[in-house]
Amino acid sequence: MREFAEPYRHGWRESIQVRALLYDGQSAFQHLQVLDTVPFGRLLVLDDACQTSEADEYTYHEMLVHVPMMAHPDPKRVLVIGGGDGGALRRVLEYPVEQATMVEIDGEVVRVSRELLPGIAGDAFEHPRGELIIGDGVKYLRETTEHFDVILVDSTDPVGPAVDLFNEEFYRNAQRAIGDNGIIVTQSGSPLVMLDELIAAVKQLCSVFPIVKTYLACVPIYPGVLWSFTAASNNLDPAAVDPARIAARLRANGKPTGWYTPEIHRAAFALPNFLTAALGIQTADEPSALPLPISGE
Amino acid sequence: MREFAEPYRHGWRESIQVRALLYDGQSAFQHLQVLDTVPFGRLLVLDDACQTSEADEYTYHEMLVHVPMMAHPDPKRVLVIGGGDGGALRRVLEYPVEQATMVEIDGEVVRVSRELLPGIAGDAFEHPRGELIIGDGVKYLRETTEHFDVILVDSTDPVGPAVDLFNEEFYRNAQRAIGDNGIIVTQSGSPLVMLDELIAAVKQLCSVFPIVKTYLACVPIYPGVLWSFTAASNNLDPAAVDPARIAARLRANGKPTGWYTPEIHRAAFALPNFLTAALGIQTADEPSALPLPISGE
Repeated sequence: MREFAEPYRHGWRESIQVRALLYDGQSAFQHLQVLDTVPFGRLLVLDDACQTSEADEYTYHEMLVHVPMMAHPDPKRVLVIGGGDGGALRRVLEYPVEQATMVEIDGEVVRVSRELLPGIAGDAFEHPRGELIIGDGVKYLRETTEHFDVILVDSTDPVGPAVDLFNEEFYRNAQRAIGDNGIIVTQSGSPLVMLDELIAAVKQLCSVFPIVKTYLACVPIYPGVLWSFTAASNNLDPAAVDPARIAARLRANGKPTGWYTPEIHRAAFALPNFLTAALGIQTADEPSALPLPISGE
Repeated sequence: MREFAEPYRHGWRESIQVRALLYDGQSAFQHLQVLDTVPFGRLLVLDDACQTSEADEYTYHEMLVHVPMMAHPDPKRVLVIGGGDGGALRRVLEYPVEQATMVEIDGEVVRVSRELLPGIAGDAFEHPRGELIIGDGVKYLRETTEHFDVILVDSTDPVGPAVDLFNEEFYRNAQRAIGDNGIIVTQSGSPLVMLDELIAAVKQLCSVFPIVKTYLACVPIYPGVLWSFTAASNNLDPAAVDPARIAARLRANGKPTGWYTPEIHRAAFALPNFLTAALGIQTADEPSALPLPISGE
């Protein structure tokens, strides 16, 4: 049996057994592959980095979407930047939003995902309240005059095509679009093997927004498994959401979850001590911190 | 550069780059190796399963030890079963206990750890309040008439030499030794790739103790990274510990932590929805659960 593995990071990597290569192509932006794997079913790979899989997609998409959607008192207009597989858009459309707009730069990701990973998007791409724009999310956000309650950045890592989704200009445009009562969340990489990138993203967000909070989940296909997201807002504190409100909205949505619960929402914001220290948010109540549990190159 | 990898589980495994093999030997119980690795420094491997490393040992040991120690109002007598590397004993001795007794079946694990991984135990094996017994922890607990406030089971996985640490007779003997106000914690394996073993351990504990709670942390060297521990008691609820008490005791201990904080203590008991469903502890407030985020063999 063949295996797929991303390159070593800090001398560490995961390997995944592969039954078959279902798709292999090059778009204008990146190298696309879909693999049929033993542990995760079908797996989307972009430029040799695992993006999403049939079996574990819910951990990432639920935590990207439900945390900011629950933090907002009444999200009606939502923007997803990236997310070509449709898994984020599908979760947004579980809520009674008026419109969910997705701007994905690479139409090939949408086409291949719809053909080979249709369960991830469900009916999101045919949904009457969903809008798909194939285009540059950075340019879209720079030029739009629309207001959004929630912006989700569902991108590849901050190298290559996605690098402009992690800088101050982008965050200032997002701030203008969400106003004082909106919230933005970006996936912010692995705290274990991409800590420098996470710290950089948090610093950029802190230079723009008064409230910036990182939270965690496990995404088995991602390097190091432990994964971070960072939420930012002028006024909304995403960590302080009433569990009863979460439970009521989940019941209203009526969809099963695999990872997210009201308790997980709060717990996700409790960071390991090495990470509070690395992000400079350690409080006097906490003991001094040991270094990252990986010793490096 | 060489690499070390445990066997595939559900078609998934981690690989670790290795600089050198520092020790390779066979004890009466198991195959011992110490590797010098790139990501984790020195790594102890027993029967081809990663046990502990210099860089990430704190995630596992802090969560094994601090959670039950903080749950007990005043732990004075503590028993560690297994834990030959000394990392658990060292954390127990950070507290003002009267006596910490460790019963490790394989003296070779202690000898090799003291020689090649001395930083993990620190001075625990020379500590005046520490006691090391080389012997069978199952037999010890069956025969002892001593009382313990906290029992920690720091074992290999529930196959091979450790299998008798996960059955009802063992747990009944532990219950007798800790009495109504003590607490026992056992490492209970990977919720992602050893879910059946975790469910079995929880069921066994539930057949003996009225309070049984599973909690989670990330241990990078372990299969799947996400790892479980299960605490059990007649009276103590390990999830309901005042954060102010935790903060005060950590300050009194005066030792840095890398993973554990007062917030992490509580957050660790928030389980992903697939796991609450698998363990049969889902509440009516939670949405129905999707399956394990790994699709299997």
